[in-house]
Amino acid sequence: MADFAGKLAAAMRRNRSLVCVGLDPDPRLVPPRVRERIDWVAYFNAGIMEATADLVCAYKPNLAFYEALGPVGMAGLRYTLAHVPGDIPVVLDAKRGDIGTSAARYAAALFEELGADAATVNPYMGFDAVEPFLAYRDRGVFILCKTSNPGAADFQDLVCTVDGVAAPLYAHVARAAVAWNRHGNVGLVVGATQPDALRTVRALAPELPLLVPGVGAQGGELAVAVRAGLDRQAGGLLIAASRAILYASPGDDWQQAAREAARALRDAINALREASSYGAGSLSR
Amino acid sequence: MADFAGKLAAAMRRNRSLVCVGLDPDPRLVPPRVRERIDWVAYFNAGIMEATADLVCAYKPNLAFYEALGPVGMAGLRYTLAHVPGDIPVVLDAKRGDIGTSAARYAAALFEELGADAATVNPYMGFDAVEPFLAYRDRGVFILCKTSNPGAADFQDLVCTVDGVAAPLYAHVARAAVAWNRHGNVGLVVGATQPDALRTVRALAPELPLLVPGVGAQGGELAVAVRAGLDRQAGGLLIAASRAILYASPGDDWQQAAREAARALRDAINALREASSYGAGSLSR
Repeated sequence: MADFAGKLAAAMRRNRSLVCVGLDPDPRLVPPRVRERIDWVAYFNAGIMEATADLVCAYKPNLAFYEALGPVGMAGLRYTLAHVPGDIPVVLDAKRGDIGTSAARYAAALFEELGADAATVNPYMGFDAVEPFLAYRDRGVFILCKTSNPGAADFQDLVCTVDGVAAPLYAHVARAAVAWNRHGNVGLVVGATQPDALRTVRALAPELPLLVPGVGAQGGELAVAVRAGLDRQAGGLLIAASRAILYASPGDDWQQAAREAARALRDAINALREASSYGAGSLSR
Repeated sequence: MADFAGKLAAAMRRNRSLVCVGLDPDPRLVPPRVRERIDWVAYFNAGIMEATADLVCAYKPNLAFYEALGPVGMAGLRYTLAHVPGDIPVVLDAKRGDIGTSAARYAAALFEELGADAATVNPYMGFDAVEPFLAYRDRGVFILCKTSNPGAADFQDLVCTVDGVAAPLYAHVARAAVAWNRHGNVGLVVGATQPDALRTVRALAPELPLLVPGVGAQGGELAVAVRAGLDRQAGGLLIAASRAILYASPGDDWQQAAREAARALRDAINALREASSYGAGSLSR
């Protein structure tokens, strides 16, 4: 298996895409005709992947949606993981964090048992909670840094001083992530909703891939977020979108609607990359 | 169903115990004769519960151990949850944290799908990541505050200022937890390894139950931790122990050995409670 970074870079290049589609099957939002099926989770995800596999750089199932459905949901996740095209990496959005032995068991669950190419983890418990994930050198580890929700301000924005540097907690997490990146497999999760934070993190971690939730295909913030987050090769970003793509239509045209939403997002991002100071012409190379 | 706080208080009183046994089935540590069985997870947990049900105030399965085993592990967890004595609360140690819809799905997974009485959650993402759990007023929500691992110092100890108060991050989390406790269902996770932190948290949150990992049946730190963490009724603590009880013997006497380890821990804690300034005579009432 190629390592995560290589697989991601290849998918970004092949599909000319920084779009990461979140596979979050919500029984209240899937088209009613899909929901009727006993295998609706697997069927819906397979349909979304069929419609978007040439438009994305990664798929990102959030485990919460599967766990809430119990064994049926987990079976749907396993089917989905078995049917992701082999050249598209899977980021399991699990946001796990635990200590010692338990962290190692979570890493085994995500990387071995479920076979993910990458996972999201929570940094609150510090290095030894993240290290068992990092030890899988061929897998990606996206560390929560500045999240896109209102509550992100509660603790992530608190200013504290480390080694004489006063900065918000999330910036210290970004610095730590850079220091922990000895195997080249670390990334950060930074919400699109606060472009200043995204700029700060990009400056602190110029080489790390950033997983960016919180944008839709529309919305002025896409342009700001992409400009703030691109690396010097006009890449290094996974722009995550779930509902805007998955539930673009409640009708029988849901696959076509998902495809169009994914393509619109991909093209809007690529236009911004082309126009960026780093990106001129880079996508046509 | 009684609410979590009431169920916990009743179990503490009935069993005269602050011991919370972690049900963490590790294939490398269970007795070989148990590991041979195809249903070893369920069998082992049932055996531990049979041996300790009159000595504990709660059981605490850590989801990492089950998820790492895949469907077999999750089936073992479901069997276990179905066979916990009805008057002993279950704290699912999941350490979940996510935003909005996803947090609500995790809460549904733990409290509805798996039916836990309480769960552990991670505060890094702030209030709206915790709120969907708190909304289950009859369930307990233990928020990670100061964990017992070395990496806890990386971020939890950073000093930051909120409303003019300079304090370590974990103390701000403790303050927030008190503010979020509108339904009386909030607790905190505070490791036994740093008694000063435990004292600080107890002072900030005099009424909250503290889930305290990091002690063994032996070890001088038990006395310090219990003294630091007891509330004014000589209770309010769940002293978590897993390996010291589960794996007290690798032989065929594993149930008896687990029982003796649990009883020794319970009795050591009770002696400390009796000797505490709050506790004189309280346990014989």
